Amino acid sequence: MHNFLLDLALILLCTKAMGLLTKQFKMPQVVGALLAGVLLGPAMFNILETSEFISELSEIGVIVLMFSAGLETDIQGFKKCGFSALIIAILGVVVPFIGGMAVSYFFNGTLIPNDNPNLFMQNIFIGVILTATSVSITVETLKELGKLNERSSNAILGAAIIDDILGIIALTIVTSMADTSGASANIGIVLLKIVAFFILSLCVGYIFYRIFKSWTDHAEKDMRRFVIASFVFCLLLSFVAEEYFGVADITGAYLAGLVISQTNRTKYIASRFEHLSYIMLSPIFFASIGINAELPQMTPMIVLFSVIMVIVAVMSKMVGCGLGAKLFKYNNQECIQIGSGMVSRGEVALIVANKGAEVGLMPASFMGPIIIMVIATTIISPILLKVVFKDKKTENVAV
Amino acid sequence: MHNFLLDLALILLCTKAMGLLTKQFKMPQVVGALLAGVLLGPAMFNILETSEFISELSEIGVIVLMFSAGLETDIQGFKKCGFSALIIAILGVVVPFIGGMAVSYFFNGTLIPNDNPNLFMQNIFIGVILTATSVSITVETLKELGKLNERSSNAILGAAIIDDILGIIALTIVTSMADTSGASANIGIVLLKIVAFFILSLCVGYIFYRIFKSWTDHAEKDMRRFVIASFVFCLLLSFVAEEYFGVADITGAYLAGLVISQTNRTKYIASRFEHLSYIMLSPIFFASIGINAELPQMTPMIVLFSVIMVIVAVMSKMVGCGLGAKLFKYNNQECIQIGSGMVSRGEVALIVANKGAEVGLMPASFMGPIIIMVIATTIISPILLKVVFKDKKTENVAV
Repeated sequence: MHNFLLDLALILLCTKAMGLLTKQFKMPQVVGALLAGVLLGPAMFNILETSEFISELSEIGVIVLMFSAGLETDIQGFKKCGFSALIIAILGVVVPFIGGMAVSYFFNGTLIPNDNPNLFMQNIFIGVILTATSVSITVETLKELGKLNERSSNAILGAAIIDDILGIIALTIVTSMADTSGASANIGIVLLKIVAFFILSLCVGYIFYRIFKSWTDHAEKDMRRFVIASFVFCLLLSFVAEEYFGVADITGAYLAGLVISQTNRTKYIASRFEHLSYIMLSPIFFASIGINAELPQMTPMIVLFSVIMVIVAVMSKMVGCGLGAKLFKYNNQECIQIGSGMVSRGEVALIVANKGAEVGLMPASFMGPIIIMVIATTIISPILLKVVFKDKKTENVAV
Repeated sequence: MHNFLLDLALILLCTKAMGLLTKQFKMPQVVGALLAGVLLGPAMFNILETSEFISELSEIGVIVLMFSAGLETDIQGFKKCGFSALIIAILGVVVPFIGGMAVSYFFNGTLIPNDNPNLFMQNIFIGVILTATSVSITVETLKELGKLNERSSNAILGAAIIDDILGIIALTIVTSMADTSGASANIGIVLLKIVAFFILSLCVGYIFYRIFKSWTDHAEKDMRRFVIASFVFCLLLSFVAEEYFGVADITGAYLAGLVISQTNRTKYIASRFEHLSYIMLSPIFFASIGINAELPQMTPMIVLFSVIMVIVAVMSKMVGCGLGAKLFKYNNQECIQIGSGMVSRGEVALIVANKGAEVGLMPASFMGPIIIMVIATTIISPILLKVVFKDKKTENVAV
């Protein structure tokens, strides 16, 4: 009866222990949390099975993660980052998208058996997963290298913000289409629903923003009510998105975060949600991805697919972003730097993949390779950054 | 499918709205949260039903509440508060216990129909509920009156700490006996298990304490790991208590809190759990009590029972604690002050009642009267305090 207490204790213990371990190897703790899930789950030691409790808490976990991402989006910075960042971001989305789709097209249903009738949408979805960028590891690495204020670093940060928004749009469109599975007649309705949802969010968001702002402006203490109000807004927008518009709930959560990021209590609210997240919700989310991951028999074909996925993931971001940068007269070294900074997929790709698995857009056998791709790019990105920023560093070696 | 998001949003919205409303009337927000649950649940508008998700989250909620209570127990203060506080607390537990038991004995199964075979344990349990003290409202009121440093206030605080511990012991014994339902042969085993659990907790707690202390002593930042480690410890002790010793999980949580209260990161850890609690877990817990409350038809008998419960709840604390104080030469006014400060039952009685309902020690028809008793004592206590501390206040009216 009380097994959910034990489940929760095990998840927290293992994700933290593995997180600290991966941190020792200069890898982000997310990788550890993911591995903890794989270890606990049926794929390895089979200590934990997923339960309704875990899956529902993990859904709330990813909603809070996306809400926080929205909260922390710097819309002002977004306006400032300029045309070059926009083009870098767009090419950095388009090239990996095509790359991912092509790899999936090549393997899915042919070299890797799959009897899903809707291979086309699945292939598109794999493309969408590869468009994601997780810039947090890049920022940490650049900080460590003392290069956060270089021209190329600014381009990375700007492009990453835009990338997030493009990613959310792509995710929204693809997951919304999951239901209609190829019936092209409905695509118009799906797009209409998406547009309707964005318009609704804009209106409701604006009204909420005005009320919330005038409410918070006069309050100096007792701010808990604002945290609760934000959370309720986030949950309702997520619910309405999924229930009435067929839009992914995390899209609603992200938009709710964007709205609240415009008020003047963002920092306080963001810190409270960070606590909620790290103490309970985000370990459950990342572990549950690992728990749900059916590690497929590592047939030579799956191994090959994983390897190619990693290569395409790395190369497509470098080529796409680098090309975008080249168009704006960045020199070759800077182009490579910018490309390297965008390689890491991190938690973003996982969130997207998890959503896809829920709506049937992710072949179960692909979850293993996707996890491998995420871990690999997350490890490769900081290594690449250290290499490509090295030349200049020899100049001020005296430090 | 996504209804749990809506449920959560509704619970958070209503508990906060009702909490702010009750606060307007100078009542604690807990009362509002409780009423919100009653309103949402089948007893009133039937908007929400309890689900596994809500009931499991609410269990984690009460575990975190009891863990926090343990964390905030001032064991040093406990040692200092002396013999008089101990006697006040003991009499303040014994008299309400007898009173509650007597009232229940008088009504349960006779005037109020009840076909449970185990009326005796139920009557004892109602006694246990009445022993609880929630001192937080008293502290707030005394602060407001500027009387927190009076001699009688110190006695209240000391006795309240001891009261919590006595309450946990009583709860542990009674709930442990719930399974054996009168088979007196097993009472020895039950008591043995309780003792074994306390010894185990002491040993494990000491080991954890030594490790945790030496671990935290050298850390200045990155303290998240300590929060997680504490939470895991709390969950495991709760789980082991219930699963292997038949002891209430909240007893385990409270003991875990006591252990960690002895380390030097208590404040930091307590603040993090407070965030976790108020943003999500404690609203769910209090609302779920309300949702589960089957408001019985308000037959004249139930109304009578409720009224008598309230009177006995108030009088028994005042008589018990007042008598204890009298033995230690407090003057009459101080005795009344001390008694008044202990009247409020607040969340503690709810936690106890909820636990009893889980293990079948609470007749469903009694939940309504218990909620009424809790709300009434919680409202009456501050009013009484203002009256009985008034006389002296006229002296420094110039302020």
